[in-house]
Amino acid sequence: MTELQNDIFLRALLKQPVDRTPIWMMRQAGRYLPEYRKVRAQAGNFMGLCTNPELACEVTLQPLERFRFDAAILFSDILTIPDAMGLGLYFAEGEGPKFERPVNSAADIDKLNVPDPVSDLSYVVDAVSLIRKNLNGRVPLIGFSGSPWTLATYMVEGGSSKSFQKVKAMMFDQPALMHKMLDVLAQSVAAYLNAQIEAGAQAVMIFDTWGGSLSTEDYQEFSLNYARQIRSLLKTESEGRQVPVIFFTKGGGQWLESMVDVGFDALGLDWQTDIANARQRVGDKVALQGNMDPVTLYASPDVIRMKVKSILEKYGAGSGHVFNLGHGILPDIDPHHVEAMVEAVHEFSPQYHV
Amino acid sequence: MTELQNDIFLRALLKQPVDRTPIWMMRQAGRYLPEYRKVRAQAGNFMGLCTNPELACEVTLQPLERFRFDAAILFSDILTIPDAMGLGLYFAEGEGPKFERPVNSAADIDKLNVPDPVSDLSYVVDAVSLIRKNLNGRVPLIGFSGSPWTLATYMVEGGSSKSFQKVKAMMFDQPALMHKMLDVLAQSVAAYLNAQIEAGAQAVMIFDTWGGSLSTEDYQEFSLNYARQIRSLLKTESEGRQVPVIFFTKGGGQWLESMVDVGFDALGLDWQTDIANARQRVGDKVALQGNMDPVTLYASPDVIRMKVKSILEKYGAGSGHVFNLGHGILPDIDPHHVEAMVEAVHEFSPQYHV
Repeated sequence: MTELQNDIFLRALLKQPVDRTPIWMMRQAGRYLPEYRKVRAQAGNFMGLCTNPELACEVTLQPLERFRFDAAILFSDILTIPDAMGLGLYFAEGEGPKFERPVNSAADIDKLNVPDPVSDLSYVVDAVSLIRKNLNGRVPLIGFSGSPWTLATYMVEGGSSKSFQKVKAMMFDQPALMHKMLDVLAQSVAAYLNAQIEAGAQAVMIFDTWGGSLSTEDYQEFSLNYARQIRSLLKTESEGRQVPVIFFTKGGGQWLESMVDVGFDALGLDWQTDIANARQRVGDKVALQGNMDPVTLYASPDVIRMKVKSILEKYGAGSGHVFNLGHGILPDIDPHHVEAMVEAVHEFSPQYHV
Repeated sequence: MTELQNDIFLRALLKQPVDRTPIWMMRQAGRYLPEYRKVRAQAGNFMGLCTNPELACEVTLQPLERFRFDAAILFSDILTIPDAMGLGLYFAEGEGPKFERPVNSAADIDKLNVPDPVSDLSYVVDAVSLIRKNLNGRVPLIGFSGSPWTLATYMVEGGSSKSFQKVKAMMFDQPALMHKMLDVLAQSVAAYLNAQIEAGAQAVMIFDTWGGSLSTEDYQEFSLNYARQIRSLLKTESEGRQVPVIFFTKGGGQWLESMVDVGFDALGLDWQTDIANARQRVGDKVALQGNMDPVTLYASPDVIRMKVKSILEKYGAGSGHVFNLGHGILPDIDPHHVEAMVEAVHEFSPQYHV
């Protein structure tokens, strides 16, 4: 493999010295880019894009052509695992992800098996290899997966949900069944992320998008426990280098201390959480990734620059900060506003690394 | 006015001794009750129900006939103030609240005036008087309003919103304009709540439903600041008795300390926040109201009882806890499950008040 030309993202995740704060952006390969929309149209639909390694590679690299980002992230969907389990993922136009065969019963859960990533999710593994090859050492590649709890919400609800009635009713009334399902999912996520690491992912991120819908005790029992199981099963090194793990529970700002205890290298922060306060609470134990309000990108470039400055200042001096939004970029943002954010991080962050 | 026969709700809000934990439920007068649906059908639509004091009174009292609740809450909508400001509130079937004339510009904001509750919102004031009369001292009556920030989100977005693009873009790009709007709203909410208190409300609650969409610093500046202004303008006593103020920011569990500093009597807790941890953090300064996950009510009555027990135990011994859900009841809950919750509070809470 080619030597990395820019490794500040990986170094910051491990709190090693860097000369400026690295930046990437959740959903950086996405609908706000006209060149993405073109490839997506060519692919026919979203899953057509995800399952075609050449096109997935192409859109993964697009934002790097425009912006001085310090990492690429695999273009894929968080629901590839349940799809490989046979649930039949599809996207109804304007409605988000759906499953043809949601999980409703003990019998459904009995049928769930850990997919073999190499055979059942070869399109992802192939995309990772291809992206890594085409990156040619420019910046590191991030692999990712949804968390077991987050995957379970879609699998039981049959799609997106507002109040998570079905999945929580199962959790409350049949906790043993829910644990069984989450255990299969944790094994599946670990195998999936390990396959991505073997194919070339240099860091991995677990998206616990819906962990924040749980009470504190249910979060510990049904979400964080399975993130812990994954952590213990993940490869810690690849190509002679540590593979950092980032864990992100949207809406989980109250629970950072318990996430730190699991032993992740970095935690994603949503924008509601104050990054100065978060740094005080987590101490030197983890790096922090985030956390500008994604809606800030609708504001004028001057305001964006000011907000970037403020977040950098709040984190303060020293390594351990990866700049990002607090959630994925919204689809109708002007790319010039993204540029304002990226350039502001390049301009204002070196002073915190002297 | 008749002497209150059951004042444990008011006493608990002031952390005075009680013999058991009081309970009421957000949206306790609502769609999960068949008798509510009947009156609502009779009224034609939701606003028809809100603006008819007799019908509003009838539905306010309905849940008290079924359940041993310790408070009644005025049946109304949080958007009555912007409607009285001339924005034209309406409810599109299945789509939630909308405004015919949203606030889009400095000119729109210039036109906003503080409504006179007695003339412009007489249907609310009349409903409060009528409910109070019909309660006849059974339990106290809670008045309420949306918070200025929460009202502003609907007024600028023109209805419900997922990402609050328009209102936040105004906040980021034109903060002075946003402050002007929030100041008018804070004055309006204070006048509105004071009118409810004069008409007979014995406690008031401010619903900051969307404060949790903000970053910590934006929350302080654009939401909590105006709750503070309201607090300072509210009548503190009526009929020789203190009128407790409850403040509830959904998604605001990280910010309890700063809410305490404002001087509210009680804070509402969403279900994500651990009530034992919250009590440690707020100390003896405020009472806490909450905080069972509303989805728990889909579970079996046995599970509901267990969860009630667990929350009571977490709060622990002493006054200062009002049992509630962490958000409004969902519309398709079985009323028998509500009964299981209420009865469990009656059964398990006396041991914490000996």
